Amino acid sequence: MAKAATMQTTWNTWSSHVIVKFVDEVLRGIGQVMFQNSPLTGLLFLIGLFGGGWEFGVYALLGTGVSTLMAHWLGVQPGLIGVGLYGYNGTLVGVGLAFYLKNEGLLPLYVILAAAVVAVFSAAISNLLGTWKVPALTAPFVATTVIFLLGIYGFGELKSSPNMPAPTFPGPGTGRESMDFSTLWHGFFNGVAEVFFQDKVWIGIIFLAGILVSSHIDFVMAMVGSTVGIGIAWALGTTNSSIDIGLHGYNPVLTMMALGGLFYLLAIDSFLFSLIAAATATVVAVALGAIVAPIGSPIFTAPFVLTTWVFIAASPLFTRLQAVAPAEATTPEGNLNLFRRTGHWWQHYL
Amino acid sequence: MAKAATMQTTWNTWSSHVIVKFVDEVLRGIGQVMFQNSPLTGLLFLIGLFGGGWEFGVYALLGTGVSTLMAHWLGVQPGLIGVGLYGYNGTLVGVGLAFYLKNEGLLPLYVILAAAVVAVFSAAISNLLGTWKVPALTAPFVATTVIFLLGIYGFGELKSSPNMPAPTFPGPGTGRESMDFSTLWHGFFNGVAEVFFQDKVWIGIIFLAGILVSSHIDFVMAMVGSTVGIGIAWALGTTNSSIDIGLHGYNPVLTMMALGGLFYLLAIDSFLFSLIAAATATVVAVALGAIVAPIGSPIFTAPFVLTTWVFIAASPLFTRLQAVAPAEATTPEGNLNLFRRTGHWWQHYL
Amino acid sequence: MAKAATMQTTWNTWSSHVIVKFVDEVLRGIGQVMFQNSPLTGLLFLIGLFGGGWEFGVYALLGTGVSTLMAHWLGVQPGLIGVGLYGYNGTLVGVGLAFYLKNEGLLPLYVILAAAVVAVFSAAISNLLGTWKVPALTAPFVATTVIFLLGIYGFGELKSSPNMPAPTFPGPGTGRESMDFSTLWHGFFNGVAEVFFQDKVWIGIIFLAGILVSSHIDFVMAMVGSTVGIGIAWALGTTNSSIDIGLHGYNPVLTMMALGGLFYLLAIDSFLFSLIAAATATVVAVALGAIVAPIGSPIFTAPFVLTTWVFIAASPLFTRLQAVAPAEATTPEGNLNLFRRTGHWWQHYL
Repeated sequence: MAKAATMQTTWNTWSSHVIVKFVDEVLRGIGQVMFQNSPLTGLLFLIGLFGGGWEFGVYALLGTGVSTLMAHWLGVQPGLIGVGLYGYNGTLVGVGLAFYLKNEGLLPLYVILAAAVVAVFSAAISNLLGTWKVPALTAPFVATTVIFLLGIYGFGELKSSPNMPAPTFPGPGTGRESMDFSTLWHGFFNGVAEVFFQDKVWIGIIFLAGILVSSHIDFVMAMVGSTVGIGIAWALGTTNSSIDIGLHGYNPVLTMMALGGLFYLLAIDSFLFSLIAAATATVVAVALGAIVAPIGSPIFTAPFVLTTWVFIAASPLFTRLQAVAPAEATTPEGNLNLFRRTGHWWQHYL
Repeated sequence: MAKAATMQTTWNTWSSHVIVKFVDEVLRGIGQVMFQNSPLTGLLFLIGLFGGGWEFGVYALLGTGVSTLMAHWLGVQPGLIGVGLYGYNGTLVGVGLAFYLKNEGLLPLYVILAAAVVAVFSAAISNLLGTWKVPALTAPFVATTVIFLLGIYGFGELKSSPNMPAPTFPGPGTGRESMDFSTLWHGFFNGVAEVFFQDKVWIGIIFLAGILVSSHIDFVMAMVGSTVGIGIAWALGTTNSSIDIGLHGYNPVLTMMALGGLFYLLAIDSFLFSLIAAATATVVAVALGAIVAPIGSPIFTAPFVLTTWVFIAASPLFTRLQAVAPAEATTPEGNLNLFRRTGHWWQHYL
Repeated sequence: MAKAATMQTTWNTWSSHVIVKFVDEVLRGIGQVMFQNSPLTGLLFLIGLFGGGWEFGVYALLGTGVSTLMAHWLGVQPGLIGVGLYGYNGTLVGVGLAFYLKNEGLLPLYVILAAAVVAVFSAAISNLLGTWKVPALTAPFVATTVIFLLGIYGFGELKSSPNMPAPTFPGPGTGRESMDFSTLWHGFFNGVAEVFFQDKVWIGIIFLAGILVSSHIDFVMAMVGSTVGIGIAWALGTTNSSIDIGLHGYNPVLTMMALGGLFYLLAIDSFLFSLIAAATATVVAVALGAIVAPIGSPIFTAPFVLTTWVFIAASPLFTRLQAVAPAEATTPEGNLNLFRRTGHWWQHYL
């Protein structure tokens, strides 16, 4: 106990150092990609990214750092930057552009400009949606990355990687295939890994571990979300290969985490509500894929953002559910403590 | 008089029964597709739908019922549900999906999910647009149905019906054809019928009768709207066949009804203003058709929604017109009574 | 001095005449296309337009006049109309439709309808964005003109001019070409001329003169914007021919003018901020070009509008910058006088 207190004091002394403070902000920023205000979560996410390829780790750091610095320069309230809210969109801008563009020539400069812009986008969307207490989520990342990615259709010094889809008309789905165990467990973990464009099972496990060290409930919600995505997509008839690499998972994963405890107080009703949202996000993903097909653009986390926005924006009319305003939301556990100091959430139903 | 009072008492007793109350909510929901808070209007619309095909009637009931129940579960204020405001988007989701998808396999479950989602969408859009006293109109239906419909481009267990357009580049129009009387009167009534995806003259007549039993002014406005749609579309040069089946009519029909007395107090100025809006909606319909052509999506009532939103959102700056807030708007006649208790509206100009 | 006072009195007497007042409103409306509340600026812009072709001048007058009259009819506050805020979108609607459609048949009537609608659009967007003190910019023009232009994909009585792009999938850019002086100075002036769809150097010079007579700072900002557009587009790799005709210039020109002094008080920080915005608008232009390619639509000033909206909407979170609300913004010089009466803006940094 005494030792822990000493360590805490030492950390407080250290973290007042500007470099350490900045590293802390960057790691929390990376952690906020999945809603966790925790440098340890951010560190585990970063390890997973370097595992996927050194360029993902480096561009994640570049994007997070530039976006955080931009927010400091422009005078954003330090409390918001300190919990990583001006970092996570920059993380994803860096990783997203590194995934879809060739890592050559102007890419580093391009990522720096995009990461600066995403900080402005974050402030703009926060301000606009703040009118209704709706969080920005990863919308700044989606908008900025789509814009800078579509720059390839006009700017020849930027080259697309083989991951970039070619423009085409959307075509009909194939129909249900018989499910096998390998697809199931690959899809289960890759659904989490794909939040960062990764498709390796062990990276998904590291990401889950990163969530677990910060919030047990979010850890469960992420897994529920991945399961919902697989279930709905399989039942409606998609290819096993798209399930295997986690393509139908990452949007319901994020949707379950956002609604199942974070922006709504966790309860049986809000859990069922979140399940409907996760199922919806799975359909929205396919619909958005069709909408951008003729443009040749990825959809990123737009299905999660749009679905979650709608399900949160509706909250003032839904007296059955207890919404948590973005400025008050911390973790599902923290919210429960804030609203109901009587112990575990299920006690409410006993 | 005594007998009417007795009947009213009997109805009040009955309607307090939960099943009767629910049937009342569902019928009013169907009536609200064309702004009528009247179970009799809803019943007439439903008869027209069953006339078009049993599946339209059944899916209309399923969509309206599920959306209404979802709103009850989530704790929406009973007064809003009671006047059908959480039903009409569900009605159209049911009919719209039944029109563009094959009625087989998972369709009933898919419609149930979509109708549950449309209730959330309704609450979200009401909350967001409530900031400016702009009504949601049928935007929740359009958004939800487009999303669930585009699910076919990825989910093979859902099959499109022959009504679904294939993705293609938009092409130039053909130019004006000589008008004949058959096209004219078909188009006139089908313009009303197409609000519910129907293209039979007698169904259009039943729908008009459904409006008439609730509001004489709306009855006139619907006919004016259909006429404007035909006139503008013909003058600008479209095919007679598209006029014949009412494709250019349903958006101006709804636009005239929304602006010509409901969300603006009826007067000569607001009537002229509504005519401009109806003409605009006719052009917006063709423009939106071009925008979604490469995606292979229908446009539903989006032209009406977008046009009417713009014409209502502008109202605070237009001192010449008297806007009616969504929470106060009932029928054109009811609005006139509310604002000006001196008799007929034209007396204002005498 | 006495003579000036007499002239002023004479002008006040004259300008109370309804015709003179209307001409004044129309000329200020044309000037407001580049943010100048000055009839002399409007006159110079108009001369440039007539220089580009008589139809541009005539349709500019028609669009501005109809939109201004529509606002008068609907009872918009005379002060707003008087400074040209209900004119400039109409100007651009007229010129834009005249540029992309053949000047025959129904075009005059079509422009009259579109110009009437753009006044409604202006009021709607002003009201909606007024919630956050974000100006409408040229969004009403972009939305209205896109809608009426896409009418050609369905209405055969409207014929597209050779300027109209055909629907196609977007393709990759070509890469950087070696720059020559002719491209540079053509692009520099055409970047300004393209705000009005013109691509002649001398017209760009007249437009710059029009800005200069109203605001020295805006004159500089327009030239900085054009330079940024050329620089970014060339570095990222576009064709010299597209630079030559000013295609990469007009959006950063408008963005620099909007942010570099008008909606943010001019200072070193806001100037750097505006440079980032101008670079972003250059990328957004290419991205939007890809998005509309399958539809076959021009993008107009949408890149400027979207970029500037984001950079203004973010302002409440940026304590480093001093935003100027649309209702208070006049010219960069006027803003400096309003906020800081101590002389030149750079004195703040001394």
